Amino acid sequence: MPRYALKIEYNGAPFSGWQRQKEETTVQGEVEAALAKLEPRAHTIAAAGRTDAGVHALGQVAHADMEQNWTPFRLSEALNYHLRDHPIAIVACVEVNEAWHARFSALERHYLFRLLSRRAPAVHDKGLVWQVKNKLDINAMREGAAHLIGKHDFTTFRSTICQAESPVKTLDEITITEHPVAAGIEYHFHLRARSFLHNQVRSVVGTLERVGAGSWTPSDVTTALAARNRAACGPVCPPQGLYLKHVLYPENPFA
Amino acid sequence: MPRYALKIEYNGAPFSGWQRQKEETTVQGEVEAALAKLEPRAHTIAAAGRTDAGVHALGQVAHADMEQNWTPFRLSEALNYHLRDHPIAIVACVEVNEAWHARFSALERHYLFRLLSRRAPAVHDKGLVWQVKNKLDINAMREGAAHLIGKHDFTTFRSTICQAESPVKTLDEITITEHPVAAGIEYHFHLRARSFLHNQVRSVVGTLERVGAGSWTPSDVTTALAARNRAACGPVCPPQGLYLKHVLYPENPFA
Repeated sequence: MPRYALKIEYNGAPFSGWQRQKEETTVQGEVEAALAKLEPRAHTIAAAGRTDAGVHALGQVAHADMEQNWTPFRLSEALNYHLRDHPIAIVACVEVNEAWHARFSALERHYLFRLLSRRAPAVHDKGLVWQVKNKLDINAMREGAAHLIGKHDFTTFRSTICQAESPVKTLDEITITEHPVAAGIEYHFHLRARSFLHNQVRSVVGTLERVGAGSWTPSDVTTALAARNRAACGPVCPPQGLYLKHVLYPENPFA
Repeated sequence: MPRYALKIEYNGAPFSGWQRQKEETTVQGEVEAALAKLEPRAHTIAAAGRTDAGVHALGQVAHADMEQNWTPFRLSEALNYHLRDHPIAIVACVEVNEAWHARFSALERHYLFRLLSRRAPAVHDKGLVWQVKNKLDINAMREGAAHLIGKHDFTTFRSTICQAESPVKTLDEITITEHPVAAGIEYHFHLRARSFLHNQVRSVVGTLERVGAGSWTPSDVTTALAARNRAACGPVCPPQGLYLKHVLYPENPFA
């Protein structure tokens, strides 16, 4: 059975997350339904990141095993045709060998969080950013973020329903950049790690926003981390600013 | 009566254009309805550009005459509150003198057209770009565009329902830039002129897309212009890629 790697963009708003659920519309469910139009049977695809309800993707990666030999171009075109009623697009498709696995071969996940600070409501980016009205201090946010880099017990920053065996993760990067927009500033948080705990990115960004707003000091982030207690976390920010941006593999399958 | 200049962003999709109409939802109608929440009476605002149905704005400018003295900050906050159910935002507000007029004081309009060339459907920018699947030759488009710069009879490039007295306009700029995006290229067309004819930008961009696709040669644009005949125009492209980006005044009222 030939195996195909798919790079997928989606707008998470209408979906109950990536992972297939019986009664809910999910991204995995819709991609598998599109595959079933091509080869009528049950399909199960594996993905690098199981994004939550409302979270977007710029570069989700999944793999699908097919019975027929498809040219990657025709496979992606056919999938996009069947996905046309959903905000999901296959933006790259390649054949990979059967040992390659979208989830287990991945070395690193890169998430982007878009945070808009302005008083006037978002118009063109509505649903694509998390908006706050207050001004933010980027230097304070960067100082707070620095306390989270490296290997830590992230119990404070994971959902109570997180199923990971260990709360210990290594966060390789939190970079915060600022981008002037009309009547405001958009902040981009780039977080990279081999893997993340459930709600970790949104817990970290929600906490750093409080630092940027001045209601937390940067060193309060250290205190919260050391508490290893979910109750010590800042507010978890909403999903509409979050994007699975890139998945790193030993070799880029889409190169 | 104090006069206020408003800089307005909107997503044109749900509106029958800028201009108030009795039976249709329009941007002017909604802004005037918001003003009537603040000062209950009939309001008539004037705008720099009467954008068509489906056309967006990043920097529409209008002015409103009020009876009360409003601090500009409170006026824009109150308007945004009453506009909250619509994709319209007041992004700047200043008091201007009574001789200042959003339409008649304007020296130049600057439109942006976003054209996405890629096979996979647009996801995050759906409704915000015009998408074609074919590849485009930017050099050919630039060569074609150069034939339109300057003072010409633009009869070929205006709607048959255009009410301007003369079809002669001076086009000061058509700049085309390319921006790599996932699995494609986005082209930005920047057009600047003192004023435009009805459908002029969309007629020009639709024609230049045909040049980029290779079905027209750049010199066919000259032939079309010289024909002074609407039937000689290329296809008029759809509104969702078009933005009124900026209006130039002798002095920037929002500076």
